Amino acid sequence: MTIENLSSNKSFGGWHKQYRHRSEVLNCDMRFAIYLPPQAAGGQKVPALYWLSGLTCTDENFMQKAGAQQMAAQLGMALVAPDTSPRGETVADDEAYDLGQGAGFYVNATQAPWNRHYRMYDYVLDELPHLVESVFPVATVRSIAGHSMGGHGALVLALRNPQRYRSVSAFSPIANPVNCPWGKKAFAAYLGEDTAEWAQYDTSLLMRDADDRVPALVDQGEADNFLVEQLKPEALEAAAAASDYPLQLRRHEGYDHSYYFIASFIGEHLRFHAKYLGL
Amino acid sequence: MTIENLSSNKSFGGWHKQYRHRSEVLNCDMRFAIYLPPQAAGGQKVPALYWLSGLTCTDENFMQKAGAQQMAAQLGMALVAPDTSPRGETVADDEAYDLGQGAGFYVNATQAPWNRHYRMYDYVLDELPHLVESVFPVATVRSIAGHSMGGHGALVLALRNPQRYRSVSAFSPIANPVNCPWGKKAFAAYLGEDTAEWAQYDTSLLMRDADDRVPALVDQGEADNFLVEQLKPEALEAAAAASDYPLQLRRHEGYDHSYYFIASFIGEHLRFHAKYLGL
Repeated sequence: MTIENLSSNKSFGGWHKQYRHRSEVLNCDMRFAIYLPPQAAGGQKVPALYWLSGLTCTDENFMQKAGAQQMAAQLGMALVAPDTSPRGETVADDEAYDLGQGAGFYVNATQAPWNRHYRMYDYVLDELPHLVESVFPVATVRSIAGHSMGGHGALVLALRNPQRYRSVSAFSPIANPVNCPWGKKAFAAYLGEDTAEWAQYDTSLLMRDADDRVPALVDQGEADNFLVEQLKPEALEAAAAASDYPLQLRRHEGYDHSYYFIASFIGEHLRFHAKYLGL
Repeated sequence: MTIENLSSNKSFGGWHKQYRHRSEVLNCDMRFAIYLPPQAAGGQKVPALYWLSGLTCTDENFMQKAGAQQMAAQLGMALVAPDTSPRGETVADDEAYDLGQGAGFYVNATQAPWNRHYRMYDYVLDELPHLVESVFPVATVRSIAGHSMGGHGALVLALRNPQRYRSVSAFSPIANPVNCPWGKKAFAAYLGEDTAEWAQYDTSLLMRDADDRVPALVDQGEADNFLVEQLKPEALEAAAAASDYPLQLRRHEGYDHSYYFIASFIGEHLRFHAKYLGL
């Protein structure tokens, strides 16, 4: 398992670093970023929050724009940000921003041509944390969060793997993808036309049937352009009510879909996760 | 005086907004960004920190990457970020990243073809604050800060106009441009070959002769790739020692030239300015 350091920037006394590695799961080279807080400097293992970004993003958007390092340094929490899809010239793609590279939707694709590379669910759940925990002073104590498509991914991963994550949070998640244009388009391409296959990647359907429960925090801006057509937090609220799920969903007047919203509340998300990560 | 709103994002309870306006000084349309903290919501006037960015930047780099809004919202301080040069198809340019558009160096150019538009010194000193103070609930109480080329600009503007700014700070400023490649190239193009003309835009020369004194804070990363060849903080330290100038210059082990460095210390810079802005 080789891993190549691409950049290093000191940040709030810790280090932001980008790496490239060969992903066996995705069958291509992948880049990810990690923030190691000052507490990790002596080799002491710190718990990690995995962050999944939204459509068109790479590992850079969150690390550059969310301002999360300040609180991560204060708490002693690592941040890990993967890319949003497999990448490369040999990887299937689509001209649209919401399918193909930059739009992996955190599923394991079953349909050609996508099934050769698009297995972001397995990559985020298994390969990436195992790599991170073998190379860095990062504990196997994990939480997960994300934005928009990444909020969907974080919630799906936590709901299906409650033993793997201590807590989950999301900003503006695609909360009911089987019922919105982004989700229908991506799931039809990646998973095929049988909508029974889609349910395993739908947060609202999963939350309705959840047994083990990962504490969940969701923030949604009320001035978000995608709120009504694509995000559908009301479906998530209904699911949580039906299963008495420990979901805290907050609506924020005036906030939109941008990183200005995320930055405004990321500190609270990190504090939320810190409680469950033992910090 | 018309001004066109291009975007609005709620951020930490206040608002980040981008505007386009016709600049008479620069003879072209210009974009700038402003952050209005929650304290300005009722029309109460708040003091402002003007931020000047570095080579290749626009108004967006600082607003998206510095994470300054959190502290600005806490303190009740507006942030104003102009572009780094005149812009447009009819504006002279150069293929290099360090001359022409994106590289105005905050001077008033005297040489053709640059003298038709490149008057960033007058724009930042007069036209922009007058516009901002006439349109927004922003007081005429000003401080100024910047990064790299913008750190040079902020220090020059404050040193030459101590009655206009309460305080000045810089990250990684080009502290002695008459003696570094970036400065020599830009000043020769914009100001001509007579180096006597350059002195009015050289922080280290100005600080050596300063009478009125604006309190100054400078942060410099010791792992900055441009430190030795381009930035020359030692010239600024020598000038401050010679004139007993109230300069606090701090060197930070391990930090580089990026916004990861700026984000790590921008909160301290805002607190520094707040003291002098009466906050």
